Order: sequence, then C-alpha cells, then structure tokens
Amino acid sequence: MNLTEKLNWRYATKRMTSAKVPNEKVNNILESIRLAPTSLGFQPFKVIVIENQELRNQIFNEACQQPQIKECSHLLVFAPYKKVTQEQVDTYLKLFAETREVSVESLSHFIPMFENIIKQTETENLIWTSRQAYIALGFGLVAAADEQVDATPIEGFNPSKLNSILGLDENNLESVCLLTLGYRNEATDYLFNKKKVRKSKENLFTFLN
Amino acid sequence: MNLTEKLNWRYATKRMTSAKVPNEKVNNILESIRLAPTSLGFQPFKVIVIENQELRNQIFNEACQQPQIKECSHLLVFAPYKKVTQEQVDTYLKLFAETREVSVESLSHFIPMFENIIKQTETENLIWTSRQAYIALGFGLVAAADEQVDATPIEGFNPSKLNSILGLDENNLESVCLLTLGYRNEATDYLFNKKKVRKSKENLFTFLN
Repeated sequence: MNLTEKLNWRYATKRMTSAKVPNEKVNNILESIRLAPTSLGFQPFKVIVIENQELRNQIFNEACQQPQIKECSHLLVFAPYKKVTQEQVDTYLKLFAETREVSVESLSHFIPMFENIIKQTETENLIWTSRQAYIALGFGLVAAADEQVDATPIEGFNPSKLNSILGLDENNLESVCLLTLGYRNEATDYLFNKKKVRKSKENLFTFLN
Repeated sequence: MNLTEKLNWRYATKRMTSAKVPNEKVNNILESIRLAPTSLGFQPFKVIVIENQELRNQIFNEACQQPQIKECSHLLVFAPYKKVTQEQVDTYLKLFAETREVSVESLSHFIPMFENIIKQTETENLIWTSRQAYIALGFGLVAAADEQVDATPIEGFNPSKLNSILGLDENNLESVCLLTLGYRNEATDYLFNKKKVRKSKENLFTFLN
C-alpha cells in the first residue's frame, strides 16, 4: 500500500481487540512523534505512554468512557506545557548547543523570541504549545497507519480529571488529546468499513495558480 | 527508505531551488491533508494552495521575509474557521448524510455537540479549529517526506497582513501556519546537513507500564 492507501485504510477505531502492538511498531510510532518538527524546535510537550491496564481502566471510569481506552494496547496522552519557563528554554538551548556542537552563547538570536513567549500569559502559551503537540499527534497518526496499527485520536474526555489522575497539573502540563493504539475489532466496531466522510478537494482547497 | 528514515531526511528547508514539484506529488500531499482526521470529522479549515509567483513575492514583501516563500514550488496557507457557524454545521451534516447514505435526521446525536461549539466565543472556536488544522499540517509534512519533497512549516509571519492579502478575514478564516513545498538548495541552505535537534526518547515520553 502507498501512503494514500494506508490513510484510507485507517479510521477512528471505536472498538479494539485488546491485542498487544509489538514493541518495534510502538517504537517506530513514538520515533515519528519525536521527529515531528515544532516551532523553534522547542517540542513544548510531553507524551505519556500508558500500557498499564489498571490505570487505563481508571481513566475509562473517571475521565473518558470510550471502550478503546480499555481495549487498546497503548494509550498516548499528549500534554503540552501550560506555561513556558526560563528553565525549559535553558534546557533546550543546552540541548541545541550540545547537538550542533556550538556554544550556548552563539544561540543568542533565539533569546528575544523566547523572551516574547515567556512574557505571554498561560492561556497564550497553551494555545501555542498545544498546536505543536497537534503536529506531533498528526505524525503519530500517520506513522500508526504506516505500521498498520489502528489509532484513534480522542478529544472527548475530561481533562481536569485526567490531569489529576496523571499528576499533570503539578508538572506544568495539560492533557489536550489522547491517541489509542491497538487493533480494530471488526465484529464489534460499528465504524468498521463505514465510508470516510471528507470534504471534496474542491471544497477543502483554494488554488491560486 | 522506511518512514523513520524519511522523517530523518526531512528538515526545515530554509533555501529552495525554485524547481517545480510535479503535480502528482503535490496531489498526493494534498490528498493526505484531506484524509487527516479531525474532531467530529468537521475539517474546520481551508488550505490555500499558492503557486502564483507574483502573489508569493507580495507575501514575501509584506507578510513573511523568508526566502523559501519565493523559492518554493507551492505555498500552502492553513486557515481555520474563526467562528463556527450553523451554516457550516448544516453543510457538514448534509455531506455526512450523503456520504454514508443516511438521513440528516439520523445524525441528531451530533446536534448538541455542535450547539456547544457554536455557543463558544470566536477565541474559543479558533483554538479548537486551529488544532484540527495542525493535525492536517502534520499529515502534509509526513506526506511530503514520503514523496521526497521538502516542506517547511512557518509560524513566523504577519497573520493580519497575510489575511488581508488573501482576503481571509471576510471569509471567516484566519491564517495560522504556512507550509512551503519545494526542493532544498544544498549550496545556499545553511541548515542543510545540520544535525536534527530533538529531545531524547527518555525526555519526551513518560512510560507507565
């Protein structure tokens, strides 16, 4: 299958079989998420990868009553930074300097850009950090399709409950989207084989030639 | 190359050769963007696809002084809806009903969800619609890498200038991110062959097994 065929194969799987996704496939999906580009290269988010069945049962009971939370193999929680801090920026500049083998001092062109971001409110920061997390979410979704692993993005959950279960608040993180990885249950999933609803090319795109 | 290798091959290309990306490749990238999943399947955005050189020169001069705006083959502007309207929802439900060959009346479970969204402020709507556009941006970036086409996401531009050039405001749209498609100029791009800066797996992910 080429990529378009794989993206047509994928769908928002609502019921999964509880079968485990092999580690190699999970690692490839996570590696794609890690390689996703972000504004300034900052990657202002964490991704919590939950395999633990009891914890997923608790999340199902308290924060998101969708069966694939229990039936998936791995549950990913995309959790952007709520507030961008000087400490995060310093850590990033250190990583940048080490990776590129340059001095931190040579990265001074970044400083005013990060100063502007740190000056913003928590609400403004979270808008920006969430967008970056959603690029990575897109990468995870395509990578899962590439690995023939089913993946369902979920916004329909109670973020404050989930933050509390995972202790995200006190770590300056906010849960914005879930992604379940697993395998479709063709027998029980009402969405299996349903036609994909998408705007036509003419409706989604405007061409200025 | 497998997908991970392709994602390592890609980078935020700063200088391009002005060579044209073949239509078939552009179409595959756009098709991936079109197939990206969104919350409720609503796809609350437009993507403006600009090939016109004069228009790209104008955008370069007035809204974004990055050379790849002029040197790319196609410039994509991701423009989410500013305000979600009843008319957009009605159009979507009609599309859904036609695609799945069901009656619009059978889709009544969608109504309260969309009512809640329409009730929100423009600011709240734009946070949500932008996130959906960023999933599609992620799909476009991976699809470009898959086609061995260079693609650079750009947030550093003047949105109000760009909205005005493209007449987005009056169409209830807001530009949030650009994506240039083209080919790297290895001779002039200072970023070519530079090591990718990314958090380690241990830093980006938290594993709860």
